[in-house]
Amino acid sequence: MPPLFWRLMISKNKIKFLKSLSIKKYRNKYNAIIIEGRRLIEESINLKADIQNIWFTEDALDTDSNKNLISSLKALKISYDLIEDKDLKYISDTKNNQGMIAEVKLTLNKGDLSKNNHIVILDSISDPGNLGTIFRTCAWYGIKSVIITENTVDPYNLKCIRAALGSHFYFKNIYKMSNHEILDFIKEKKYQLICADLNGEGIESIGVEKKWAIIFGSESDGIHIDFKMFPKLSIQKLGNMESLNVSVACGIILDQLFTKFKG
Amino acid sequence: MPPLFWRLMISKNKIKFLKSLSIKKYRNKYNAIIIEGRRLIEESINLKADIQNIWFTEDALDTDSNKNLISSLKALKISYDLIEDKDLKYISDTKNNQGMIAEVKLTLNKGDLSKNNHIVILDSISDPGNLGTIFRTCAWYGIKSVIITENTVDPYNLKCIRAALGSHFYFKNIYKMSNHEILDFIKEKKYQLICADLNGEGIESIGVEKKWAIIFGSESDGIHIDFKMFPKLSIQKLGNMESLNVSVACGIILDQLFTKFKG
Repeated sequence: MPPLFWRLMISKNKIKFLKSLSIKKYRNKYNAIIIEGRRLIEESINLKADIQNIWFTEDALDTDSNKNLISSLKALKISYDLIEDKDLKYISDTKNNQGMIAEVKLTLNKGDLSKNNHIVILDSISDPGNLGTIFRTCAWYGIKSVIITENTVDPYNLKCIRAALGSHFYFKNIYKMSNHEILDFIKEKKYQLICADLNGEGIESIGVEKKWAIIFGSESDGIHIDFKMFPKLSIQKLGNMESLNVSVACGIILDQLFTKFKG
Repeated sequence: MPPLFWRLMISKNKIKFLKSLSIKKYRNKYNAIIIEGRRLIEESINLKADIQNIWFTEDALDTDSNKNLISSLKALKISYDLIEDKDLKYISDTKNNQGMIAEVKLTLNKGDLSKNNHIVILDSISDPGNLGTIFRTCAWYGIKSVIITENTVDPYNLKCIRAALGSHFYFKNIYKMSNHEILDFIKEKKYQLICADLNGEGIESIGVEKKWAIIFGSESDGIHIDFKMFPKLSIQKLGNMESLNVSVACGIILDQLFTKFKG
């Protein structure tokens, strides 16, 4: 490694640019986001995120526990530079950045949604932590086609990115559609649409087909009326809670779909 | 309902007391916690929490959407009073209190842990949101015996309470034990101990017995070495993430345990 002073310091313009990415408008304008913290950055590299650059504080660059990461960056020819503590603090919204932040380019609207037999649709999910946790679960189960409706929270919200732990980059693309577009797509491409719902049937009664799309509704209101005519899938309740957290429900249902009906 | 001015206003001492309950030391001292927001308060009432009193802002007391709640309070003889906006803001740590807050008495160290055939053990769970979401899932599946280790975050942390949505009150008790005490208990009471682990086997290979205790480890480090000699249960991975969120993993594993091996 070259001595630290050889590395470039981040420019004022770059700081301004990175800071702007905490706002949805600028994320959309530049198709870029920031990610922070070692675990998230490492997972994103594993999932082949298009990382433009990584900035480390001098302390972080010097830390033993980051040696492996720095080695991978060199091997993968991912560029990295220095950033001052105060600049990182200004850009990053958490105390969990562990002295490192990365700029990632988003590749949007690429790839064929209908290439995959299994689709997860997220309608009106309002909590970014829930959305990110659902993404993480989808990537675990190999789901590559994810659709969000217009009422769902921005998937590039920093809280969502943190909870998703890099899974955004597994999907290649996150599709945003209106309910109407979803219904047309499902019909045209002949997917079986299933709704996760508190008042439905067990998976044994549903009869899952080879090509399926499962939809999860809002934390407070459940499935939108536009989708209510489709089969409703419920999780067995043995105790006494009104509902499960939506990201937990998503995990259980995906596990059931893949365990019992391998498409 | 009597006119509003008939209702008692909260005293300065009570405000001070309720505020103190945001600190673990005082929650332990008084065996009391505060809960806030309509949904959480309603679920806690359903789950027979020992509610001492509820305070509403004048606006909240007057709101149509709270009419059902007020009726239940009267029917159940749960007392309620008025609180000023500024006092509520001082006590409550969120903007999501919806104008209402309740004091709940905790009943601790009651009940026989070994009365139930299924136990969930949470070791070194550090995120209160994860812990609360796990509690919610346990209550959904009818788990009444929950053990936490000494390294697990305080279950009466407000974030945990919010995520748990009242499930604390379903358990009757949350047991806190050392690893040593857990191992002794499991052995004495003849439970099968199973570890949720990334490098384990599918549930079909484990051979689940009638009495089981499942342990979930820390978000970053997994199962503690003290438990590593027990069978390890993994969730099938079809995609490319390093891990699942621990609360999602808990949901999937409980569903598998109850679906495949009804004890």
